[in-house]
Amino acid sequence: MSELSTETTAFIEGLTYDANGLVPAIAQQHDTGEVLMMAWMNRESIAETLRGGRVVYWSRSRKALWRKGDTSGQIQKLIELRVDCDQDCLLLLVDQIGVACHTGRRNCFFTAVRDDSPRIIADVIVAPDKLYEK
Amino acid sequence: MSELSTETTAFIEGLTYDANGLVPAIAQQHDTGEVLMMAWMNRESIAETLRGGRVVYWSRSRKALWRKGDTSGQIQKLIELRVDCDQDCLLLLVDQIGVACHTGRRNCFFTAVRDDSPRIIADVIVAPDKLYEK
Repeated sequence: MSELSTETTAFIEGLTYDANGLVPAIAQQHDTGEVLMMAWMNRESIAETLRGGRVVYWSRSRKALWRKGDTSGQIQKLIELRVDCDQDCLLLLVDQIGVACHTGRRNCFFTAVRDDSPRIIADVIVAPDKLYEK
Repeated sequence: MSELSTETTAFIEGLTYDANGLVPAIAQQHDTGEVLMMAWMNRESIAETLRGGRVVYWSRSRKALWRKGDTSGQIQKLIELRVDCDQDCLLLLVDQIGVACHTGRRNCFFTAVRDDSPRIIADVIVAPDKLYEK
């Protein structure tokens, strides 16, 4: 993996992290605009994502780097990383291999309130036991 | 404003809020897919958004409901509210009037890391002093 420039390293340091050292990161499919998921990143995961070109989050439950796709094969290739005006939220333009959601759906936002009632609006594409059978 | 159904009220109660009673909410322009901004909502702002059809956030700095557009006129009409698989992040499909960002840009994610360097990639559309002159 390549080293990051002084400017990019300063950019990462300059972000506004929460009390746990994290920022929310929205993953969006770069060509269709589909919002795939939201997860969290710390300094190390941002640096590794920018160096390696593959998205790495921070898992709050496992308290460890989460190299998305290591278990499921459903990796996210980074196309571009952006930050918002307050430097406290990231937008990751990605190329999602397969499905983003652990339920086997393409994206995580598959429940919508329609006609004043919550409804499931997307089908499972890959059975979860196939995603995690390795 | 209309009252919400028992199902929708239970849906709001069933979301996973953080220690401050908030969930992150991503606003996406419903027809173009542009990710506009990320802000926070509490139970009350979600209910008011669903009842009124206009997006209301919770301002963490002002510790008050933030009826987006009350000061700037740049309101967000709600098209659909969705929640993710963990019930801890919302996706708001909206119709954004004018600009979403307080800097006068269409969306808040106007800084990108390109060629290992952070760069401003979007122009100001409305001068901020015009947005807040009222």
